[in-house]
Amino acid sequence: MTERVHNFNAGPAALPFSVLSTVHQQLLNYDDHGLSLMEMSHRSSEFQAVIDGAQAALTELYNIPDTHEVMFLQGGASLQFAMIPMNLGAGGDYLNTGTWSTRAVAEAKTIGSAQEIWSDAHNGFKSIPQDHEWTLSDTARYLHYTSNNTIYGTQYHHVPHAGVPLVTDMSSDFLSRPLNISDFALIYAGAQKNIGPSGVTVLIIKKSISRSFIGEERVPKILRYPTQAEKGSMYNTPNTFGIWVIKLVAEHVLSMGGLTAVDAQNQAKAKQLYSVIDEHPLCDGHAAKNSRSLMNVTFRMQTPEQEARFLERCGELNMIGLKGHRSVGGLRASIYNAVPTASVDRLCDALSSFSG
Amino acid sequence: MTERVHNFNAGPAALPFSVLSTVHQQLLNYDDHGLSLMEMSHRSSEFQAVIDGAQAALTELYNIPDTHEVMFLQGGASLQFAMIPMNLGAGGDYLNTGTWSTRAVAEAKTIGSAQEIWSDAHNGFKSIPQDHEWTLSDTARYLHYTSNNTIYGTQYHHVPHAGVPLVTDMSSDFLSRPLNISDFALIYAGAQKNIGPSGVTVLIIKKSISRSFIGEERVPKILRYPTQAEKGSMYNTPNTFGIWVIKLVAEHVLSMGGLTAVDAQNQAKAKQLYSVIDEHPLCDGHAAKNSRSLMNVTFRMQTPEQEARFLERCGELNMIGLKGHRSVGGLRASIYNAVPTASVDRLCDALSSFSG
Repeated sequence: MTERVHNFNAGPAALPFSVLSTVHQQLLNYDDHGLSLMEMSHRSSEFQAVIDGAQAALTELYNIPDTHEVMFLQGGASLQFAMIPMNLGAGGDYLNTGTWSTRAVAEAKTIGSAQEIWSDAHNGFKSIPQDHEWTLSDTARYLHYTSNNTIYGTQYHHVPHAGVPLVTDMSSDFLSRPLNISDFALIYAGAQKNIGPSGVTVLIIKKSISRSFIGEERVPKILRYPTQAEKGSMYNTPNTFGIWVIKLVAEHVLSMGGLTAVDAQNQAKAKQLYSVIDEHPLCDGHAAKNSRSLMNVTFRMQTPEQEARFLERCGELNMIGLKGHRSVGGLRASIYNAVPTASVDRLCDALSSFSG
Repeated sequence: MTERVHNFNAGPAALPFSVLSTVHQQLLNYDDHGLSLMEMSHRSSEFQAVIDGAQAALTELYNIPDTHEVMFLQGGASLQFAMIPMNLGAGGDYLNTGTWSTRAVAEAKTIGSAQEIWSDAHNGFKSIPQDHEWTLSDTARYLHYTSNNTIYGTQYHHVPHAGVPLVTDMSSDFLSRPLNISDFALIYAGAQKNIGPSGVTVLIIKKSISRSFIGEERVPKILRYPTQAEKGSMYNTPNTFGIWVIKLVAEHVLSMGGLTAVDAQNQAKAKQLYSVIDEHPLCDGHAAKNSRSLMNVTFRMQTPEQEARFLERCGELNMIGLKGHRSVGGLRASIYNAVPTASVDRLCDALSSFSG
């Protein structure tokens, strides 16, 4: 069998091998029922146990209070960019820290008014704002921000204080560290980084939003949070396979010691890699040091030729996914939860011994 | 290993065992790349080949002309209920043949005007209208119908002639028989019956709709067909795993001889089962005979106690999914493409020998 690659993909990304092994083992015969989970009704007691289990594991991981609930939707974070103003009403304030924030505010503007109250676009999206750097609009209905910027490699290391409901795109750092869920009105995340396969969006949502609809009458029923919340995320058929994998990933994170343990591991992996980059004569990090992401490490070398040679060397060493996004260039190592320390070690070794 | 069940689930439903075996075989190491397909970037050449392959197989199966294209979206048929009027404009006419048609027209009414020009609700949704039974509105922008009604077990055996664009929810009989694609403006189908796992919606759409947007300015970008069509269904991350399974299913259908061969097999399976029902002294079919579905066979016995005993007997014989939907009651056997003749044989035997 081929050796398993060292996977630094930005997303869809590495999944825990133990989770993949369970999926493999049960793929043809789920829990000894004589069929695949993909072939089971979403209305069966077996699948109900899967979705309940996924919610329970996430609730335990984040210590989610009764004021909030977990939902599983489809359409990616991109559909949330539209559903947020459709459900919370127009007039959100947006902090723009990269490509996904830019798309979020642009989509909100198709629904109604939306204000970009801070942007780092002129600076190549290298930094995350501190609270004193922005001023909320008088009429802001909510504050939206992107907690981790996959493309630029920046991340909030604080939770903004806004005094209005906080709405956070956590697609690329969900499940990476503990949070106080009460700080948030709505957290949403495409699953394909830290949580599972693509095709599921996980939400942690305040019940005051998910259980009563305050948007306009013309918002389609399928796009109203209460439609799905009242039906336990099964108003229509959900992505059953994806939710199963999410359950397994969440239970795996619990078995590792939960989010505090995962956070410590993520801190250690990132510290190790950034140290090598900072000490390397050819390397420069993209993000401002106080805004560096623990999930996506962006850096460049002195010339594109050096980067090409380094990528070639990585390929020889069975490491993939290290080319930077076209809008930033350079190199990017995505080191999500499921990227083992051994992979980071290998990358650090390759980088340390690379002299151009 | 547990014997594989005889799976009559209405959806998510049986998948071809050879397809599941391929998924199982490649799950940990896709095409010898050293990682799971779930861990691969949707921007990789490997996944591009998967989505291209899925489109190519569907194009070959339906002989799709250049005027149309295949798209893979998320959100199920239920999201299409909203996207259709958002993209084609309000003012559609709807033929109401069951639960899903009812939902489709109700959702269209949240967007703007929509007319239900025929309904069988008063008759327990037992029949499909012939063209002379309905009259198109003068202002109809399109005609919408549901080609197969999973819950009531009815199916169109003709393509309605409307003189306006034809929009068809084909969720439960997609890939079951040949079609002349030029007759349709838009065909859409949730994957979880005949095509793959839940979490992907397949569209065959006329390029005049998918490539230019005529809806209102306030329709979010993510909900406009051209947004996804221009990006080959990858404006945002698609359900990569689901699309892979769809590719395998479509290729499997090709290898069986394509839709003509599948249709013949479906006709034979349905004929066999309906014959047993018609000859059985305790059984009555739900659907009018000229409207019977080849996919979902709905019937009842003389008493609920007989039905309960028959379901128990089926369970002993390793057959599942035969309870009727709560809105119809009775019994339902879903005999999609992937339900083998051997399963239908077993059900027919059990029914023939059941005397109450």
